[in-house]
Amino acid sequence: MINKDLVKKLAQQLKNDGVSALLVAPSADLMFLVGHKPYLCERFQAMVVTDKEETFYICNALTEAEAIGFMEGNKVYPWMDSTDFTLTVKKAFEEFGLIGKKIAINGAVRAFNLIRMMNNIEFTAVNGKDYLELTRIIKTSEELDNLREASRIVDKVFEDLIHFIKPGLTEKDINDEIVRLCKHYGGSDCHGGIVAVDANAANPHYFGNSAVVGEHAVVEMDFGCTYKGMWSDITRTVIVGKATEREKYLYNLVLQANLAGEAAAVNGAYIPDIDAAARKIIEDAGYGYNFNHRLGHGIGYAGHEAPYIHGDYHMHLAPGMAFSCEPGIYIRGEIGIRIEDLVIINEKGETEILNKCTKELIEIV
Amino acid sequence: MINKDLVKKLAQQLKNDGVSALLVAPSADLMFLVGHKPYLCERFQAMVVTDKEETFYICNALTEAEAIGFMEGNKVYPWMDSTDFTLTVKKAFEEFGLIGKKIAINGAVRAFNLIRMMNNIEFTAVNGKDYLELTRIIKTSEELDNLREASRIVDKVFEDLIHFIKPGLTEKDINDEIVRLCKHYGGSDCHGGIVAVDANAANPHYFGNSAVVGEHAVVEMDFGCTYKGMWSDITRTVIVGKATEREKYLYNLVLQANLAGEAAAVNGAYIPDIDAAARKIIEDAGYGYNFNHRLGHGIGYAGHEAPYIHGDYHMHLAPGMAFSCEPGIYIRGEIGIRIEDLVIINEKGETEILNKCTKELIEIV
Repeated sequence: MINKDLVKKLAQQLKNDGVSALLVAPSADLMFLVGHKPYLCERFQAMVVTDKEETFYICNALTEAEAIGFMEGNKVYPWMDSTDFTLTVKKAFEEFGLIGKKIAINGAVRAFNLIRMMNNIEFTAVNGKDYLELTRIIKTSEELDNLREASRIVDKVFEDLIHFIKPGLTEKDINDEIVRLCKHYGGSDCHGGIVAVDANAANPHYFGNSAVVGEHAVVEMDFGCTYKGMWSDITRTVIVGKATEREKYLYNLVLQANLAGEAAAVNGAYIPDIDAAARKIIEDAGYGYNFNHRLGHGIGYAGHEAPYIHGDYHMHLAPGMAFSCEPGIYIRGEIGIRIEDLVIINEKGETEILNKCTKELIEIV
Repeated sequence: MINKDLVKKLAQQLKNDGVSALLVAPSADLMFLVGHKPYLCERFQAMVVTDKEETFYICNALTEAEAIGFMEGNKVYPWMDSTDFTLTVKKAFEEFGLIGKKIAINGAVRAFNLIRMMNNIEFTAVNGKDYLELTRIIKTSEELDNLREASRIVDKVFEDLIHFIKPGLTEKDINDEIVRLCKHYGGSDCHGGIVAVDANAANPHYFGNSAVVGEHAVVEMDFGCTYKGMWSDITRTVIVGKATEREKYLYNLVLQANLAGEAAAVNGAYIPDIDAAARKIIEDAGYGYNFNHRLGHGIGYAGHEAPYIHGDYHMHLAPGMAFSCEPGIYIRGEIGIRIEDLVIINEKGETEILNKCTKELIEIV
């Protein structure tokens, strides 16, 4: 069902920006807008919202019936595989008076399709990634509750994992167990996550799966699931065997940075200051280069969405915002440690850390 | 490892087209180029291949180590989350003399990142989706063997499914069994596929999972897996209970179209003629409107790649090409039937149907 309040809000924002329409390809954005996310292959498809609160949909004929299903009588323009889809887009743009206008493009549209459109249709493309992310940056009480529950699920998963991890398991074995446990505790979209042993964890986005946990090992796990559409996202790093002094030192640095970020994340805080508070701990110890990503990202209908917690995101925290606090230290060829919680500014303006499971250094012996 | 022959070939093609470089974001394209596919989040990253056979990589600092790993000493330009990535792209473009030039963009780059680049860097973006797809359109003998094996796996899966499907199962139950069997028979990337019961199958890209198989049901299943990087893709539609006369009639139409397409798919055939041969059967019976997609798509490192089998793809078949033949009839609110095989033109120029499992109408009683 089309969220008509949202269409109205978007139309107003487009008008304010002098933009005539927003193209929304299948994504968390579209899910938020119509409660449905069609499968997106290489074929162009998008819902269009105009500054006059009109909506229409352009898609391949093979998904026409699906689009008719959720577009509630609004126009659907199908194109056939054997034709150039830009002819259909052009026709739709003509009928809605969008030729020659500024059109915003959401985050899911692919560049090669945009290039085809720009070659054949007169319009100016502007970056529309933020429109829907910003309209949902303040979560409702119900969404906050679902975020809380999604985090409760991954907390339970982590508590069980502590008893599961042992030498001889592969990264894949642990990831399979994460998937199983997420489903077991009521999560959806349980695709597993990052499980990285020892030096593999030096790549913050490592997605291998074959390394084996040794008698002594550092195991970093980053995973999430959804509950009623809202994502969780947690990272914990544990030591198999007794931690060395260096491991303890690095772990404690990351933990202090995590705590400093969370302490700074109060209602009204300027986002770059939150990133800086956590980063300072790691930089002062000489590992600034090894914390090579932002402190966090917003979360909700998408795993990554506004607000983004880094030094160039000029916004202040407000009640209803939800985001991760996830500092890390990554040393090539040696080790990677990251500790991630989700944080919300709740309805009362209080900072609430959604992940309650321990962050103390765990040695699995 | 960078495929240097391929870089040479790409550079030559770019030069022929007057294009100065190709941007390749993580995808089957990059897999083909460097044997590795980094995880692609919202952050821009891409390998760049120039018409002078130079290569470099631009990515977020968090994946710098990973890129250094496969770029073999070629330059890697990292950007930090707290900075505008287009500044880093601009610096790289300046160092390689790409400012003001034509730059091709592969299929995986996202439009909002391209728009940011176009706003801040002087260059002309052209559609580069085809470059890598066309360089791998002719499969090697080894790749053909892997395609054969990937199809053997899904054939076995289907043969087992016939004995598994029964009234009371949900679409999800059947999909879970597909995943289990694909893995069991040695497939990789076993993510399940489309399982659509009765009217759900009228949407060719249906991805629901909750409908239940009744005492009488039409069950359409479309799935694949990889074997050594090469994809399989099969669709079979079975009847639970005794088929009605109408089901038999529609099934036979689709089967005749499938056979006509495969008969037309001989070495040297003009691709639009293949699509037309299959489509004619369905059109002549009055169901042209209900066959609302192309006859097929190429397959290999990507599930969908060149050649695309439809009326506007002006190419002739040649030895080494691999593609699907998958006509369907979709009637809204009633039924969907599709039959899909993979077809190759083999080393000897013969047409080989890779799927050997039966296409005769199966009634599960």
